[in-house]
Amino acid sequence: MYQLIDGKAISDQIKTEIAEEVKQLVANGGKQPHLAVIIVGHDGGSETYVAHKVKSCEQVGFKSTRVAFEEDVTEEMLLAKIQEMNQDADIDGFIVQLPLPGHIDEQKIIEAIDYRKDVDGFHPVNVGRMSIGLPCFVSATPSGILELIRRYGIPTRGKNCVVIGRSNIVGKPVASLMMQKGYPGDATVTVCHSRTANLKEICRSADIIIAALGSPGFLKEDMVKDGAVVIDVGTTRVEDAAAKSGFRLKGDVDFANVAPKCSFITPVPGGVGPMTIVSLLRNTLLAAKHNL
Amino acid sequence: MYQLIDGKAISDQIKTEIAEEVKQLVANGGKQPHLAVIIVGHDGGSETYVAHKVKSCEQVGFKSTRVAFEEDVTEEMLLAKIQEMNQDADIDGFIVQLPLPGHIDEQKIIEAIDYRKDVDGFHPVNVGRMSIGLPCFVSATPSGILELIRRYGIPTRGKNCVVIGRSNIVGKPVASLMMQKGYPGDATVTVCHSRTANLKEICRSADIIIAALGSPGFLKEDMVKDGAVVIDVGTTRVEDAAAKSGFRLKGDVDFANVAPKCSFITPVPGGVGPMTIVSLLRNTLLAAKHNL
Repeated sequence: MYQLIDGKAISDQIKTEIAEEVKQLVANGGKQPHLAVIIVGHDGGSETYVAHKVKSCEQVGFKSTRVAFEEDVTEEMLLAKIQEMNQDADIDGFIVQLPLPGHIDEQKIIEAIDYRKDVDGFHPVNVGRMSIGLPCFVSATPSGILELIRRYGIPTRGKNCVVIGRSNIVGKPVASLMMQKGYPGDATVTVCHSRTANLKEICRSADIIIAALGSPGFLKEDMVKDGAVVIDVGTTRVEDAAAKSGFRLKGDVDFANVAPKCSFITPVPGGVGPMTIVSLLRNTLLAAKHNL
Repeated sequence: MYQLIDGKAISDQIKTEIAEEVKQLVANGGKQPHLAVIIVGHDGGSETYVAHKVKSCEQVGFKSTRVAFEEDVTEEMLLAKIQEMNQDADIDGFIVQLPLPGHIDEQKIIEAIDYRKDVDGFHPVNVGRMSIGLPCFVSATPSGILELIRRYGIPTRGKNCVVIGRSNIVGKPVASLMMQKGYPGDATVTVCHSRTANLKEICRSADIIIAALGSPGFLKEDMVKDGAVVIDVGTTRVEDAAAKSGFRLKGDVDFANVAPKCSFITPVPGGVGPMTIVSLLRNTLLAAKHNL
């Protein structure tokens, strides 16, 4: 029988831990951690994510600031706001919610953020430091995945870990972390992607599969060996008339058929998803403590 | 019959190309590219490498500067020299020859170099930009390996590429490059290391093996499938009474027995080694052109 990796429960537990730490920090005369979020336009997904982030800040006792720009904001205005936040000593960390409108250069925006406040971990300095194995802000999804592995005590040393997807925000960084020395890490890591020739065979050799390609139900039972650990990073919105919102989130794994073969598996929703926000909170707490 | 990848010939060819480009650059009123090298102490290997770098600069028409410190130089003095070079408009790129004495924090030294002059590609900004797939200075050995693959037209798309070794200067960056979109890249990349459980089996599934673990003769014929491409990054000094220097370089591959199974293979010496210096020259040329 497989064990379900309960990201919701773990994230609640971590929020409680963070809230406790914030309480002590403030009791000791420290500053209340402060996360700022910049949002551009009115994309439904982005607005939902940002609302969750702001709400999570409240839950753990962080101060939060939400700065909203209309869709037609200029790159210059956005850069000016970023400079302001870089210099604002009260703000410990901030993020610019992605994606941005087409007329704005996302990479330029990311690189404008002071890497010491880049709690999303997207700045090249943080990406590079993570690759080298130095202290840094690790981006939310990879960090959340490793935390789930750690909390469930899943063995990684010498295990074959197959990552499906080579995105800059999930596939590449999680591969980088899984191959680092120490735990969770020390895995033999294979990164597969759209050009991979023998994906099924490679997946069948995996002790741990991290599916992050954004293709609903992609990973089928014949691609998974008995006893494998399966981490599903997919969160594609699919129409669902029965849902209040009109859609539901679907993962990259054909859960019903894959789960019976697994030792551990994450559900969607309620697996990796809830972990991403706590990773952001942990980075912000880290940023706040560096400032003390 | 296998084809030998002749790094010496390719590096000579690239030097000729660079020399031609420098000639045109200067003829058009541009500045002569200028590489500076800082060396600390009197390690035999380091002195040889630096001498090669300086000589290669001469060969392609670069200006070069060699700054030597004694073993007991303080970190502060070294940092002061780096600041000076960061600000010296005549110096396009510079490197600090590694390793450094134990009392100096190597990472601190690397991060003190302006990443726009970091032609060794070790600064976290360059490591991060490479991982993300942005223009950057790629470090010499990974860059040299990819150039050999490119010049020999070795197919990489959808191929299984196994990297043995997870060092920051070879294993991790070459894995990162081989999985990027485009050519050479688009390979399915597996990174193996000291914790890997089933190395032989994994190597036998590889179309391309990049051996970078620093263990002479490690890769044996029973670990390589017929027709594989083998890139040997090892350069361990082993004693050899017959050699004038008293030693010779030995690769990570048991060449005599592995080569007959290969489609392409690099020798040691004369394979990857000669490519590292031309990668450094190419980065310096790139730095010089950015300044124009």
